[in-house]
Amino acid sequence: MKLEDLGERKIIEIFLNEIDEKILYDDASLIDFGDYYITISTDLINERLHIPREMRPYQIGKYLVNVNLSDIASMGAKPIAFMAAFGLRRSLDENFVRELARGIMEVCRKYNVKFLGGDTKESLEINIAGIAIGIVEKEKVLLRSKARVGDLICVTGELGNAAMGYYCLINNIYVDKFIKKALEPEARVKEGVILKDFANACTDISDGLAYSLGEISRQSNVGFIIYEDKIPVDKDLKLLCEKLGIDYREVLYYKGGDYELLFTISKEKVKRLRERMEFYIIGEIKERDFGMKIFRNGKVEDFEVRGWESFKSKI
Amino acid sequence: MKLEDLGERKIIEIFLNEIDEKILYDDASLIDFGDYYITISTDLINERLHIPREMRPYQIGKYLVNVNLSDIASMGAKPIAFMAAFGLRRSLDENFVRELARGIMEVCRKYNVKFLGGDTKESLEINIAGIAIGIVEKEKVLLRSKARVGDLICVTGELGNAAMGYYCLINNIYVDKFIKKALEPEARVKEGVILKDFANACTDISDGLAYSLGEISRQSNVGFIIYEDKIPVDKDLKLLCEKLGIDYREVLYYKGGDYELLFTISKEKVKRLRERMEFYIIGEIKERDFGMKIFRNGKVEDFEVRGWESFKSKI
Repeated sequence: MKLEDLGERKIIEIFLNEIDEKILYDDASLIDFGDYYITISTDLINERLHIPREMRPYQIGKYLVNVNLSDIASMGAKPIAFMAAFGLRRSLDENFVRELARGIMEVCRKYNVKFLGGDTKESLEINIAGIAIGIVEKEKVLLRSKARVGDLICVTGELGNAAMGYYCLINNIYVDKFIKKALEPEARVKEGVILKDFANACTDISDGLAYSLGEISRQSNVGFIIYEDKIPVDKDLKLLCEKLGIDYREVLYYKGGDYELLFTISKEKVKRLRERMEFYIIGEIKERDFGMKIFRNGKVEDFEVRGWESFKSKI
Repeated sequence: MKLEDLGERKIIEIFLNEIDEKILYDDASLIDFGDYYITISTDLINERLHIPREMRPYQIGKYLVNVNLSDIASMGAKPIAFMAAFGLRRSLDENFVRELARGIMEVCRKYNVKFLGGDTKESLEINIAGIAIGIVEKEKVLLRSKARVGDLICVTGELGNAAMGYYCLINNIYVDKFIKKALEPEARVKEGVILKDFANACTDISDGLAYSLGEISRQSNVGFIIYEDKIPVDKDLKLLCEKLGIDYREVLYYKGGDYELLFTISKEKVKRLRERMEFYIIGEIKERDFGMKIFRNGKVEDFEVRGWESFKSKI
């Protein structure tokens, strides 16, 4: 079967079948180091999939670092270093390289992350693998598998904006606030470091809220309920969806790209966390048998879990 | 100026101009960790540049891990983990993934390296960034900059075989021993770990002996002399070069792909190292003012330093 028919997650499954030991399937990988874990993640960005024509080289650089740091933040780790392997087209010019570097360095500086170099090769299209390295005390690492029944489900910010930004770009509708969210997502680096002292489970929302919820549910072996009207959204999101004739819930749950953090927290810790950072309670973790539900329009419905998947999904 | 006119090293220079602090330009990057360095390297392999049609998916997997482990070995570090970001074509099939994974795991198992997963995305051509992580005691790390005047210059094995293998593939000449060296290079992982207790400077010979010597010379601020007839070569290499009408020295010095280690060592340590591993003394480190020389045909000549360079070089 061809990869386009298999999809990313099936490809990963085939791959994992060849591995002897179980590997942690979380936002980043862990290396055991005394009282600490070194967390490492790699995210590959591709010209056709992740780099709209409107994204300037400086924004590509920022995007590359942010999507990688997001995976470190979601483990509760502090990022310490960043590297990249650049596959670049021959036809690009030196200004592209300069602006790309400027974007990368701006984000590295902002979070005091050391840029450690990497590799540069020729490629038919731009393919850049970012590599982010972080560190976290072992007992504080945030995993998708650590949600507990009774935990509240929270997010760090508005959802759906980045996906709407992509729709805008594709349809040549220039609503800048959404487009900016698509082109310049910001990793929740500081929030991740705070959350290690408060949250139980955590993951970032790169492939859509539904996918991220599904992962926490599957790996923690729990159910959940989400309250649709508690989800923070931009006030114009619904309206613009209607105008464009696109499904509001598709944008909100199934597209991703926001890079907000989704986390679960014991009720008694909520008040203390409020003093440290902004977040929104959108639901609650339930027993496995409860299933995956959503409360909307005055009633409880089943919540479909799927999300963006490389090779299969279309924007 | 376009990247094809700039070449890899000029691209890196433009990039580094945007960086505040000086970054270590060595085979791998270092992260300070108490008494240890964590060494990380990333090497991107590209379908057109590194993957001849004859290279089977299993061999791609082995190649990917070996070229990355080579950069860890050349720092004197023990490899502990491996990750990869896979850019794969939609048209590949599941057997490709299975065989690729098998190759990767075979090398990881051989050196007791933990495979930690990574990322999978769609790409127009195969682009895979390998990421190798190692560890070494701080005071034992091997750097290109640590060669001392009077050190002997050594290599761990025969040179030119991989380059000859590529020539064979391109010209449809099936001399299996050379082709195998091109398709299945083996990183000197065990030798790297031994060398940390003996060598001063070290680098791998991925872009040709001349380039590697040039790097040690530049970064250590020293000159050198190489004795051409001391360089270990396959007995058929010269003959086959003559037959094919290609320049023997071009193959030997300027093409690379062998992934042997080039290191320098104080004379008094040579005997003890002989008891631990096989190696070949090919020259000696001299004062900077001596320059870069080669002894051949009974006389000393200037040695031209250049090597394989992405974007610019042609096979």
